[in-house]
Amino acid sequence: MLEIKDQITNHRSIRKYRSETIPDDILSKILEAGIKASNTGNMQVYSMIVTKDEELRKQLWEVHFKQNMVLQAPVHITFCADVNRFSKWCKLRKAEPGYDNFLWFYNATIDAILVSQNVALSAESFGLGICYLGTTAYNAGRIIEILKLPKGVIPITAIVVGYPDEQPPLTGRLPLEAVVHNETYCDYSDEKIDQLYANLEATEQTRQLLEVNQTETLAQIFTNKRYTKKDNEAVSEAYLDVLKRQGFL
Amino acid sequence: MLEIKDQITNHRSIRKYRSETIPDDILSKILEAGIKASNTGNMQVYSMIVTKDEELRKQLWEVHFKQNMVLQAPVHITFCADVNRFSKWCKLRKAEPGYDNFLWFYNATIDAILVSQNVALSAESFGLGICYLGTTAYNAGRIIEILKLPKGVIPITAIVVGYPDEQPPLTGRLPLEAVVHNETYCDYSDEKIDQLYANLEATEQTRQLLEVNQTETLAQIFTNKRYTKKDNEAVSEAYLDVLKRQGFL
Repeated sequence: MLEIKDQITNHRSIRKYRSETIPDDILSKILEAGIKASNTGNMQVYSMIVTKDEELRKQLWEVHFKQNMVLQAPVHITFCADVNRFSKWCKLRKAEPGYDNFLWFYNATIDAILVSQNVALSAESFGLGICYLGTTAYNAGRIIEILKLPKGVIPITAIVVGYPDEQPPLTGRLPLEAVVHNETYCDYSDEKIDQLYANLEATEQTRQLLEVNQTETLAQIFTNKRYTKKDNEAVSEAYLDVLKRQGFL
Repeated sequence: MLEIKDQITNHRSIRKYRSETIPDDILSKILEAGIKASNTGNMQVYSMIVTKDEELRKQLWEVHFKQNMVLQAPVHITFCADVNRFSKWCKLRKAEPGYDNFLWFYNATIDAILVSQNVALSAESFGLGICYLGTTAYNAGRIIEILKLPKGVIPITAIVVGYPDEQPPLTGRLPLEAVVHNETYCDYSDEKIDQLYANLEATEQTRQLLEVNQTETLAQIFTNKRYTKKDNEAVSEAYLDVLKRQGFL
């Protein structure tokens, strides 16, 4: 077994999986690792929906932009902010819950993500691979229908888990100094930005991306192809609507 | 060194610290562990503000409800959602950034929390203790002033880090079945709620809490003392205002 710091360093997202199922006892240990995470006031305002059923995973695959890995991986875990359970308990105990507001979306989101990262790291410690699905926000309304989430519950993120069928190279990161500020925030000069992004812009992968996309700069691939302002604004609107409907705004 | 699954299981929040400083090389390794986490589109839309200065930590102590540990622990790390750096890069590369909206608060929040949990677990693997500061949302506006966060940057959570001066018992959790749903969400009957909260309600700690607070139920301590509806709504308003001011709404 790797030490934690080596394991964290070796993390890569896995996008190809073998069909092998995950033994129940291992899955339980992974989920159990999740609930050991710090959480707001020990109220555990989150839920994990563990979906293995093929028909349901096919529906999830559709809302997660039909990424192959969602069909391949035997386990799909959706991490939700959840004030429903806690509020139900309050009502049964002569206490009036007041968690139908933005603060508790915020707190419960933090809780859910802390759980998810413990689950992800624990899964990797058992030789499993994981990939976060950043597409969760895009079709949150559909995910709520598929997973039958009641009011007070909203999906935050999801991961697929399974035995890896690939060992991709590590993804590069900006140098540490790009994201760490000493004492207070030190805003970036143009020269500093040039320096911090130089390595990323000089990779062979970037060169190929620019060629394939017929684009002048790497930044344009993000703004014009991957995450356009128009899409960002539409998804923001849609998610805020879902927040209202689920009782957080 | 513990294996990751044992380390996760042994996590407890530390609220008393020795004055000993953290060696720079260890601090670097911990922060480096943070940036290995999965993140949205490898855009790394987060920043870590590492505050050691005593005067600044005193200001942070005040906004974090004057909890002693904030003064004691030698290192204070504030994890921020940050679209400022990425947007600056876009503008310098003839790309029009479109990240001034709720979706990117959401994405960047997830990124920042994944980083924070890697940092927390890495710190613990070096024998350090950590405690998350759930108070970050409460005075986000003041934290922005103290840490000089520009538009496009907003604090999400913070931890204190240092050498533990206590070894508190593990905090109990609800049984795993309380937070895990198979296939789809299975809503809770009254009987199920009774069953899931029975152990928590039966602890000696709960009995003492009820006595000290002169309260009938544990749930009432949450709704009437710790997290009141009035406070929740006021903090929600204040944080939404900050979100607007920082350019995410």
